[in-house]
Amino acid sequence: MHKTTLLIHCKDQPNIIALVTNFIALNHGNIIYIDQHVDREQNIFFMRLECEFNSSSFSIDKFKMLFKNALVDKFGFKWRMYAADKMPKMALFVSKYDHCLYDILGRYNSGELHLEIPFILSNHKDLKPIADSFKIPFYHVPVTKDTKHQAELKQLELLEAHNIDFIVLARYMQIISSLLIDKYPNKIINIHHSFLPAFVGAKPYHSAYKRGVKIIGATSHYITEELDAGPIIEQDVAHITHAHSIKDLITKGRDLEKIVLSNAIKLHANRKVMAFNNKTIIFY
Amino acid sequence: MHKTTLLIHCKDQPNIIALVTNFIALNHGNIIYIDQHVDREQNIFFMRLECEFNSSSFSIDKFKMLFKNALVDKFGFKWRMYAADKMPKMALFVSKYDHCLYDILGRYNSGELHLEIPFILSNHKDLKPIADSFKIPFYHVPVTKDTKHQAELKQLELLEAHNIDFIVLARYMQIISSLLIDKYPNKIINIHHSFLPAFVGAKPYHSAYKRGVKIIGATSHYITEELDAGPIIEQDVAHITHAHSIKDLITKGRDLEKIVLSNAIKLHANRKVMAFNNKTIIFY
Amino acid sequence: MHKTTLLIHCKDQPNIIALVTNFIALNHGNIIYIDQHVDREQNIFFMRLECEFNSSSFSIDKFKMLFKNALVDKFGFKWRMYAADKMPKMALFVSKYDHCLYDILGRYNSGELHLEIPFILSNHKDLKPIADSFKIPFYHVPVTKDTKHQAELKQLELLEAHNIDFIVLARYMQIISSLLIDKYPNKIINIHHSFLPAFVGAKPYHSAYKRGVKIIGATSHYITEELDAGPIIEQDVAHITHAHSIKDLITKGRDLEKIVLSNAIKLHANRKVMAFNNKTIIFY
Amino acid sequence: MHKTTLLIHCKDQPNIIALVTNFIALNHGNIIYIDQHVDREQNIFFMRLECEFNSSSFSIDKFKMLFKNALVDKFGFKWRMYAADKMPKMALFVSKYDHCLYDILGRYNSGELHLEIPFILSNHKDLKPIADSFKIPFYHVPVTKDTKHQAELKQLELLEAHNIDFIVLARYMQIISSLLIDKYPNKIINIHHSFLPAFVGAKPYHSAYKRGVKIIGATSHYITEELDAGPIIEQDVAHITHAHSIKDLITKGRDLEKIVLSNAIKLHANRKVMAFNNKTIIFY
Repeated sequence: MHKTTLLIHCKDQPNIIALVTNFIALNHGNIIYIDQHVDREQNIFFMRLECEFNSSSFSIDKFKMLFKNALVDKFGFKWRMYAADKMPKMALFVSKYDHCLYDILGRYNSGELHLEIPFILSNHKDLKPIADSFKIPFYHVPVTKDTKHQAELKQLELLEAHNIDFIVLARYMQIISSLLIDKYPNKIINIHHSFLPAFVGAKPYHSAYKRGVKIIGATSHYITEELDAGPIIEQDVAHITHAHSIKDLITKGRDLEKIVLSNAIKLHANRKVMAFNNKTIIFY
Repeated sequence: MHKTTLLIHCKDQPNIIALVTNFIALNHGNIIYIDQHVDREQNIFFMRLECEFNSSSFSIDKFKMLFKNALVDKFGFKWRMYAADKMPKMALFVSKYDHCLYDILGRYNSGELHLEIPFILSNHKDLKPIADSFKIPFYHVPVTKDTKHQAELKQLELLEAHNIDFIVLARYMQIISSLLIDKYPNKIINIHHSFLPAFVGAKPYHSAYKRGVKIIGATSHYITEELDAGPIIEQDVAHITHAHSIKDLITKGRDLEKIVLSNAIKLHANRKVMAFNNKTIIFY
Repeated sequence: MHKTTLLIHCKDQPNIIALVTNFIALNHGNIIYIDQHVDREQNIFFMRLECEFNSSSFSIDKFKMLFKNALVDKFGFKWRMYAADKMPKMALFVSKYDHCLYDILGRYNSGELHLEIPFILSNHKDLKPIADSFKIPFYHVPVTKDTKHQAELKQLELLEAHNIDFIVLARYMQIISSLLIDKYPNKIINIHHSFLPAFVGAKPYHSAYKRGVKIIGATSHYITEELDAGPIIEQDVAHITHAHSIKDLITKGRDLEKIVLSNAIKLHANRKVMAFNNKTIIFY
Repeated sequence: MHKTTLLIHCKDQPNIIALVTNFIALNHGNIIYIDQHVDREQNIFFMRLECEFNSSSFSIDKFKMLFKNALVDKFGFKWRMYAADKMPKMALFVSKYDHCLYDILGRYNSGELHLEIPFILSNHKDLKPIADSFKIPFYHVPVTKDTKHQAELKQLELLEAHNIDFIVLARYMQIISSLLIDKYPNKIINIHHSFLPAFVGAKPYHSAYKRGVKIIGATSHYITEELDAGPIIEQDVAHITHAHSIKDLITKGRDLEKIVLSNAIKLHANRKVMAFNNKTIIFY
């Protein structure tokens, strides 16, 4: 049994669903999941589809070719097709905070995540013992003002050597430059510790405390050139009161950060996210 | 433009999506929404689909006939098809509590609900002034132990005279007998003031207080023969503390009841709910 | 039985709780609720206390005098004392949206709110029938660019004539000027339809849609000179997806607005809110 | 600076707050936190208080004696007093699931928990490597039908040898007998994977799936003789849909279990929980 995931977007036009589902039926596939969305403002059609092929002679490369020839050019599809059993490779960037790292590795260990982690990278050595205890290679790539460009070249080299599909910044405390962003567009997931767009930038819990909000939040988003302004994947919030100190907010916020980031990772790794025009379409 | 909603369930089998979407394309319809679910335990396929027909000569009755002849018998579909602009008719049953009634009528007035309310019915006269202020006919059908059967015959007569599609029990404090349930299967929506299956039956807030739970809830479900055991449509909860008295629970619970019931009404009226085997599939 | 509510704040200093509780005991009162908070950054102590006096000869005015002489000046208390059974008078300002109005009046009718509503005021006539159906006086005070100052003088006159204690802006679509703000400091409650400080100002649902957030919110706060920047009383949020249109956000948001505003009203009317330094301390 | 936490409950009677706060003032303590609750049905008064003593000669044992002599017997107090800096000792019981264990140890490592973990105990060896990586002693105490009593004697011996204050069952898959419950009344914290009282006993996610609920939950409670019927400390829920399989519920539920259990541990370790009459009073 070959399970395939297909993501398409294109200008909205009649009968796309019939065309695609029919094409799959003609090629002896069976659709087991379909979801679609039309952005009426931009007039764009989005679709996510999972199908199964029973034939032992099925080849995803051949099927991709057939699909391309039959439909892609004719209808102007932007598309991606994945063999569902092929797990994406995720690089984990961390600094000194360990709560997101523990959370991700605990889930990884228990088989909850459909992905591989070829390596963990940090600008500090502090979290190496955790990587060791989970038996995952750890690279220490220090970053200083003067060595930032060289550090990024080193990062790129590692990412390419390990065929990394996407990067997760699990409270990695360095600004990512366009060098990486351009190579991994909508493939670098960050966790920001506020309900964006409130409290962009540094020390959001301090700002939340000062403003006297009654809820705090966390936001996972794809990194773009503009700080904390990329497409939002997942958000969640928690209620607080006047009695919570900044330290309490930081502690409470850690739980939000871990769960929001892990949910975003799962959505991305399961190919459920489409980013378009600085927003995300998420097919749950 | 004719917008049509189609709900199907049947034994799971290959290519149903392709067959149906193709049939619609051949009949010059354009699909604007599709969602599906497979119950792997029971091996049942469920689908909800919305499509538009541009032709001025389109007739839903003719289309139903074509659909039936082409697919229904061949593939064993259980199905319903609606003209989307035809609003269902809802009867509102109430007793003395007014919070759900105000909430529903406020939404009705503001155009939020895709339905008509031909009448409000009550076993008491207390809420008549509210019905009057919203200019909705109000029928007082008293129920006593001795007159229960006659009252239900009267209810049935009113329901049939007004071509009612579904009934909402907005804190109606009488047990509904099989006379009505059999005529309106999965078409009588109740609001129960607990997170079912906890605290079935009378006085759930008292039971919640006694047990010392830290959350209370409300559940909207279709009425079946067994008390509070029908298919669940919507649930929500609120956090409480030891400091909340039973009276506080009742007050806090009212907000849950209103919102959970109104959400269930919207889902049902928009034909987004399929009930099967005492559970619901809900296509949001 | 005379029930009294006491709110105090002052520079933090030792033994305030003992001093106040002892004073009450000596005056034959029994404390039935006490809560306190220390703002460690500003070094300010806050306390809320409820006590009961059994004596038939108890006079709150006399007790206030005794309290003032014994403690207030000596320890620099800022304080307020209320007879708990004396309900505050609330003026309701509305424009054309009716959802918050229905919600508040529904609760008022059912006895859920510990307050009186001497009148409803609007710059439009649309909602007069609702005021009528609840038998509450309705004043139409139109506001144009040229008549704004005169309109506000008229508003002030009505507020004073009815001995209004606090004002609720239930989606009142006019900026309140300093004329009213200065007369009712931390006594004008607004509902803003976003999770502040995100999306300050007009059309927050449109901004939320454009930014692609996954949660929307509502915030109730006291009006200050700076737009949407006053002390926050209550906030809540709801999850949304890419599939929600701006119209969906507006509909979903209405439920947040109603509940957040009604909760803020209850907290204020029950004298549970202390505003200090543009934040609130709320004793639940 | 000596910080002390005091918990009292007794028959409700006038002036207790004044008596206690005055006693502390006379002994040169300064109250920094006070909260109280009256159970009107049972007529019981509960209070939690934190105070600070500056004197270098302060002795908590001496203060306890003074308190006892002055107030305890006279007013029938049930009471506990703690030096706030003395951390309670917690034993962790686990079986094969690791998600709660990772969550607790991650928090422990980061300094979030005000407690010591002298040992982890399990009826299986599977989780020993995790205990090792966090450098916490691990005892393997197998339990079979025939050796259950002996295993419990062994457990008791370890608990007593390490001066354990309370026990946490972090998905420990054995019924605890009265031997332990009687020695540690309201001191054994369990996590049950449903919103109790719904779905008592084994396989609650399977039951939740079967009933078709739209929310699942987790409940942390003190163990009593009756299964899953002890005083509830903390509960939380998550929304689900028809599309979630039992496996999905189990995965989603793990996040609830971890957070609910860790919150309950923090409340207990910070002496914020009072259990009375099979319910809890929690002073946040």
